[in-house]
Amino acid sequence: MNRYDCIIVGSGPAGLEAAVNLSIRGKSFLLFGNENLSIKLETAPRIDNYLGFPGISGRELQRRYREHLASMNIPLRTEQVNLVYPMGDYFSVATNKNTYEASTVILATGTSPAKLLPGEERLLGRGVGYCATCDAPLYRGKTVAVVGWSNEAALEANFVAELAKKVYYLPVRKFSQTLRDNIQLITSPPVEILGEHQVEAMRTKTETIPVDGVFLLRDSIAPSALVPGIQVENGYIVVDADMQTNLPGCFAAGDCTGKPHQLMRAAGQGQTAALAVTRYLDRKASEQ
Amino acid sequence: MNRYDCIIVGSGPAGLEAAVNLSIRGKSFLLFGNENLSIKLETAPRIDNYLGFPGISGRELQRRYREHLASMNIPLRTEQVNLVYPMGDYFSVATNKNTYEASTVILATGTSPAKLLPGEERLLGRGVGYCATCDAPLYRGKTVAVVGWSNEAALEANFVAELAKKVYYLPVRKFSQTLRDNIQLITSPPVEILGEHQVEAMRTKTETIPVDGVFLLRDSIAPSALVPGIQVENGYIVVDADMQTNLPGCFAAGDCTGKPHQLMRAAGQGQTAALAVTRYLDRKASEQ
Repeated sequence: MNRYDCIIVGSGPAGLEAAVNLSIRGKSFLLFGNENLSIKLETAPRIDNYLGFPGISGRELQRRYREHLASMNIPLRTEQVNLVYPMGDYFSVATNKNTYEASTVILATGTSPAKLLPGEERLLGRGVGYCATCDAPLYRGKTVAVVGWSNEAALEANFVAELAKKVYYLPVRKFSQTLRDNIQLITSPPVEILGEHQVEAMRTKTETIPVDGVFLLRDSIAPSALVPGIQVENGYIVVDADMQTNLPGCFAAGDCTGKPHQLMRAAGQGQTAALAVTRYLDRKASEQ
Repeated sequence: MNRYDCIIVGSGPAGLEAAVNLSIRGKSFLLFGNENLSIKLETAPRIDNYLGFPGISGRELQRRYREHLASMNIPLRTEQVNLVYPMGDYFSVATNKNTYEASTVILATGTSPAKLLPGEERLLGRGVGYCATCDAPLYRGKTVAVVGWSNEAALEANFVAELAKKVYYLPVRKFSQTLRDNIQLITSPPVEILGEHQVEAMRTKTETIPVDGVFLLRDSIAPSALVPGIQVENGYIVVDADMQTNLPGCFAAGDCTGKPHQLMRAAGQGQTAALAVTRYLDRKASEQ
């Protein structure tokens, strides 16, 4: 398997600035993220503290970010990263489509879900899943609830509905995707996942719906669920001044490392992380 | 005396982004820096890692920074800050023209001089000085060497020459200022300041010039000389994740906190420092 110098998880300003700097330094890397780059960016009407460009809109900045990637021939991979596993001197990274290897990782996953749903952690792997395309085949002919945070999530609900008998779709954010006929839209917010040893039902604010499985399709997975063994405090990844986490070779940047959640801070940390990755790789190479 | 919420020392990307964020948050502050904002910025031919704006020139970014300040009515004060003194719950800031008070300080002074000149530290206050406008009157009718790192330094040499009998000007960087008649230009680089108890001569690479005093007019003063008691490691100001130094209310951002010396990192730290200042001020206000 091809081993990349680095895998960047996340396409907000931290991930993109890391990619730009790794590209300039001639490192091989993969950049995983969302088609919209960053939902927070896309929905910002006016940004006054992006130094040099007061009053720029989130959409304009998003467009310029895309152009920056294009000008450097940096492809964005929209696969969902489900697991980053430390393997000693490299990392194994599993997405919903494939597995990759890299010597280093930069986590730029943004803010993690404010809160887990009650029942989510207890029933994870027992009917609760984060990857519809991975696990949908388990629910052939069954009934499934899909909670979606993005447009892509609605697409995945459609994929699940190809195999499942019945799908309930609970959108947390607006979506523009047309849903298949066997999907029932539930607008009441999800409150709890029920079940003793296995998922039995999804409780919403107004009703309890019996289901065999629940997919939670968030923009990002909580760091502790994404990277086994990573040190997290108050929901944020702990980093030093070089953006190094407690796991050697694993760096983090942007909103996932703490507040304030701001574009310039995130981009600056992405840059710092990329240059620390470069030094880390050079040091490793000189040791061999 | 008017007490400002914050005084920002330095007009590189860290200081400017701090100013922009303090302005948005409605804080009162002063921004001290150089007319060129940042010599490193001004002389950068092409910048490829300013996210969203690949290939932008330093001069173009400098122009946009000036416009950003203008759009928010943020004045830049070109006074040289010579001393930041912690006074308990506020700071006293002395420039070459005046003294100011502020509840907090953000140090964004950039990289400090690579090396002190031999003899500089030993003879500081004994003929070696950093503030020509402060100390020039001491050299009325005497002979003085002025080592200048900027165009403003040449201006200051002219001021010294109004009082001194003879001035030698040793430019470290290019300057466009016309020098007075009693100033002799020395193009050989300064090597050492000589004198047993008091400055006696300036040694350059090619000659030794007898002088009564030496002014070293750098873009910035070393942090430890600027702020008594500040914690410095390997020449860099020690900060936590909020950019707080060891002195409560004193924050630092940008190249003066460490490597890599990069625009995005500096701007991001300036933003982080400004928002930490805001929280610090709000916390202090709520305690009263």
